[in-house]
Amino acid sequence: MNQKLTVVKIGGAFLEQDESLKAFCRAFTQLEGPKILIHGGGARASELGNRLGIPPKMVDGRRITDAETLEIALMVYAGWGNKSLVAKLQALGCPALGLSGADADIIRAVKRPVGTIDFGWVGDVQGVNHDRLKAFVAMGLVPVCCALTHDGAGQMLNTNADTIAAEIAVSLSASYDCELIYCFDKPGVLTDVNDPGSLLTELNPTQCAQLAADGIIATGMLPKLHNGFDAMKRGVRVVRVGAPAILKSTENEHTRLHHA
Amino acid sequence: MNQKLTVVKIGGAFLEQDESLKAFCRAFTQLEGPKILIHGGGARASELGNRLGIPPKMVDGRRITDAETLEIALMVYAGWGNKSLVAKLQALGCPALGLSGADADIIRAVKRPVGTIDFGWVGDVQGVNHDRLKAFVAMGLVPVCCALTHDGAGQMLNTNADTIAAEIAVSLSASYDCELIYCFDKPGVLTDVNDPGSLLTELNPTQCAQLAADGIIATGMLPKLHNGFDAMKRGVRVVRVGAPAILKSTENEHTRLHHA
Repeated sequence: MNQKLTVVKIGGAFLEQDESLKAFCRAFTQLEGPKILIHGGGARASELGNRLGIPPKMVDGRRITDAETLEIALMVYAGWGNKSLVAKLQALGCPALGLSGADADIIRAVKRPVGTIDFGWVGDVQGVNHDRLKAFVAMGLVPVCCALTHDGAGQMLNTNADTIAAEIAVSLSASYDCELIYCFDKPGVLTDVNDPGSLLTELNPTQCAQLAADGIIATGMLPKLHNGFDAMKRGVRVVRVGAPAILKSTENEHTRLHHA
Repeated sequence: MNQKLTVVKIGGAFLEQDESLKAFCRAFTQLEGPKILIHGGGARASELGNRLGIPPKMVDGRRITDAETLEIALMVYAGWGNKSLVAKLQALGCPALGLSGADADIIRAVKRPVGTIDFGWVGDVQGVNHDRLKAFVAMGLVPVCCALTHDGAGQMLNTNADTIAAEIAVSLSASYDCELIYCFDKPGVLTDVNDPGSLLTELNPTQCAQLAADGIIATGMLPKLHNGFDAMKRGVRVVRVGAPAILKSTENEHTRLHHA
């Protein structure tokens, strides 16, 4: 049996809250075995854009990445967000290595073809460099990946952090027993977003589709779940969704995804 | 005899000029053997600061780094600048790995003590993680380092890129035959900044001190030269200063530093 490796994705909102970020970093550092962290940063990117007179451009809840917005993403995700996290983890003794998809050619993507929506400089993941990531992990390092990829021809691309987390977990499942954890500010998938008591501790694709059709699962939650189910189909052994407490092994308040 | 390794530092102004940056990246990629790139980004940082209503704060030509300025440095150096460079190098087949000093704990620094000037979040290099850098180079990767360090306690620090280049070259001199090249927009040290014909092809510390005392060497040039002479004293075999053409072995138009 392969060694266990945990891939954790945290929502960008955590980067904004010093105390909850510290708590997250402590829990992440204590997580045993090889691990990889993926983070967003959209909230701060929107804020910087507003300060620069470049408001976020959204269509159907999806970020449109024009050249100016990509520059902001580079600055906020790979710069401020990634390095703040890496420095905090290092202080806790976690040997973090910040990466974008271009670094060591870790994640290649293709610019999304223009259909009914032109997403701009948005990349769909083409491949994860399994050998390089594995080599970093073998060095004892903890990759900390931001939501940026590259096309191999000099262009950086904006890529959804939930998707990057899933793709990395799928890729490393060839060598490790991978668990993928989506960490955000709720204890998991709720049928009533205002009631933590409405937590679904188990969820399969059929239930998810029904709840989505009934408008019960928040639309912002669906890409995460679709990524999670897809990752399980492609070899990731466990996918869980919940608050940072999920990183403690004693925690049972979260949503665990299941095959059909 | 140890294997040769080249440490190249480019001035931030190159990051602003697409054509000259491409030319630099091509020359750097063609450079044979293990290599490391260090870059600045001060011009763009000043510009972003101005757009955000945070003008650069300078005392005696030295940047003062308050909390807001540090955030800008993180965004511009580690984000926009580093990732633009890494993506461009990857496109040329150069396996670049972008790093700040916090990544893999590559460069630790201590916050500069407050004397007559309070430099703010500025770090003086305490140590370079020789083993980690060497491991990256052994993987065939090309570290691309920005002008940021960390204190090991969660704080990122702004550190002069010329100094970082020198410290990395000194550290790796324990394992490699190191050459340090300072690359900027002049062919080398000029006695008349407007006349490329006034190039000094050789320079030693005594000559340098005399020319500085006579006000002949530009003040902006002096820290680079002091770093260079210091690096030679501490084991770096060759230090040269010049325009990007210096990376071609056939080039003779540059300044080579010499021991006394």
